[in-house]
Amino acid sequence: MRAVVYHGARDLRVETVSDASIIDPTDAVVRVTHAAICGSDLWFYRGINVLEPGRRVGHEFIGVVEDIGPEVSGLRRGDRVIASMVIADGSCDYCLDGLPTNCRRGAFFAWPGIDGGQGEALRVPQAGGTLVRLPGGLPDDDPLLERILPLTDVLSTGHHAAMLSNVAPGSTVAVVGDGAVGLCAVQAAARLGADQIVLMGAHPDRLELGRRFGATDVVQARGAEGVAAVFQLAADGVHSVMECVGTQDSLDTAVAIARPGGHVGMVGAPHTNGQIDIGRIFRNNISVKAGIAPAQRYIADLLVSVLNGSLDVSPIFTSTVALADVVAGYEGMDSRRDIKVLVKI
Amino acid sequence: MRAVVYHGARDLRVETVSDASIIDPTDAVVRVTHAAICGSDLWFYRGINVLEPGRRVGHEFIGVVEDIGPEVSGLRRGDRVIASMVIADGSCDYCLDGLPTNCRRGAFFAWPGIDGGQGEALRVPQAGGTLVRLPGGLPDDDPLLERILPLTDVLSTGHHAAMLSNVAPGSTVAVVGDGAVGLCAVQAAARLGADQIVLMGAHPDRLELGRRFGATDVVQARGAEGVAAVFQLAADGVHSVMECVGTQDSLDTAVAIARPGGHVGMVGAPHTNGQIDIGRIFRNNISVKAGIAPAQRYIADLLVSVLNGSLDVSPIFTSTVALADVVAGYEGMDSRRDIKVLVKI
Repeated sequence: MRAVVYHGARDLRVETVSDASIIDPTDAVVRVTHAAICGSDLWFYRGINVLEPGRRVGHEFIGVVEDIGPEVSGLRRGDRVIASMVIADGSCDYCLDGLPTNCRRGAFFAWPGIDGGQGEALRVPQAGGTLVRLPGGLPDDDPLLERILPLTDVLSTGHHAAMLSNVAPGSTVAVVGDGAVGLCAVQAAARLGADQIVLMGAHPDRLELGRRFGATDVVQARGAEGVAAVFQLAADGVHSVMECVGTQDSLDTAVAIARPGGHVGMVGAPHTNGQIDIGRIFRNNISVKAGIAPAQRYIADLLVSVLNGSLDVSPIFTSTVALADVVAGYEGMDSRRDIKVLVKI
Repeated sequence: MRAVVYHGARDLRVETVSDASIIDPTDAVVRVTHAAICGSDLWFYRGINVLEPGRRVGHEFIGVVEDIGPEVSGLRRGDRVIASMVIADGSCDYCLDGLPTNCRRGAFFAWPGIDGGQGEALRVPQAGGTLVRLPGGLPDDDPLLERILPLTDVLSTGHHAAMLSNVAPGSTVAVVGDGAVGLCAVQAAARLGADQIVLMGAHPDRLELGRRFGATDVVQARGAEGVAAVFQLAADGVHSVMECVGTQDSLDTAVAIARPGGHVGMVGAPHTNGQIDIGRIFRNNISVKAGIAPAQRYIADLLVSVLNGSLDVSPIFTSTVALADVVAGYEGMDSRRDIKVLVKI
């Protein structure tokens, strides 16, 4: 079988690797039909995070269960499944508390010794707590699967931003960042009934897509100018701020535009020194929450909206590549030509 | 009438001032029977905050309504009242949302042009939204009033820490800081049914009082040693951390001891640069909330527990002074000989 293997910054190769197989009794083997490149994959692609050569990569995928360990419950061979971005057993105290991201036996795809999702197949540890069954009977090329695929990470993460920032019917919301997560956050907020959704970003085409996704206003300015623009749109700031970038600049902006009593939800993986305007937060009783999305907690709920057609973020996939062309997909995202790239295996 | 007047660092004087009188139709005049010195009063006493000379001080008091403006509703002359630490009209959108600390017509006692509570009487702006009626018929020297007085600020603030940090029945809790607010936070957490309450502080006598208030464990160590001690007591950290100091050290400790999925509530007025370990928060889906206590939102509820005897933080008043001796009260708190000082007018 073939899979994407990391050899260094800007050196990914599609190589023949050992066939995926069961090792632990809680494993499943999944034949991948759809994978995606995550914005966070660019960190190692660009050399900002350094991995050891030979590492498999990717953590967003849909596939079909091909083999199954004796201790996996709730899954059968032939099931169509989607992966939650985080590996979790589904049964420890943290998982039962809705925090699979802190599972006692948790792990991440593409960790040392753990397969990545960008390949023809992979071994999935803790399959029962990690994979979510999808409706059966769909052929591999059913376009519905491309609408479902974002649930694996990016859409669940956008929804998590809405949860962390208490998006509620009638509320005013701002999304900081017009990347794939930010765009998903816009639809997540619209789905939850937000009244005003301000999308802040740098790219006119992405802001335009944000409008199609439900943004009522877009702000292209950054820093103090961007903050002022939000206050023009929402006099006291917004109830809910979804921080979908992870830089110090975007965190500063997020804290600055929250309304008194408001909520900042940060889902951009932090690449900051963690400075926050604590005086502003204190004077205004603002909450700041940050976290990795517990995708398995959200997928079933969000899937209902995807299946009934009310939630469709698939336009974030601005290109589709074959496995052999995955490097072109990384290049497209690295250059920002693409918002997000789908890999049809 | 006589009141405490600020003339500079360590220069407070009890002076004759103009009699309190109605200026605005929303004012009341209150004859003060009980006042208290707040830990935050030490900031100007010590010269860390500089005020203009001549400023009245104090924001914690109980008294009797002596005069009332024509637009004040819900109060009559002769009513026994307790002040919420923050002046608010009770009718603006923020007040109706439970955020009197951001009232559109809000203010603070002892601001320029606004009387302080440490004196024989004062003008209370926005009296209808600021004062809370207490049971009638109590003589000025009823000891029950000394148990009620902390609701004006310190107990409401301790309770706010519990609200911000989601203290719930059966939860594990840590209180950072053994000052008056921290000690109140201990009782607030116990009242809400917390199972384990770890009090962190520096003073054996205060920690001992914390045990009487409901702390199940006390930790006298600070910094990394203190954090390690908490992890000895609660293997993964605690669900709820109540930060009751406001320094960078205590904020660091608070973030470090929160359990995955846990909550940090910061009510210590921040004197920090606002650095937080955002990576730890992100990996563990920890929330950080900070804020001034909306005392008027809590007083009625907490008063029930005070009246039925289940909530009594009055032992934090380690000294009682007459108005003429208020400077001795400040000295007692400044030297940490006293936890908190009651001023019987």
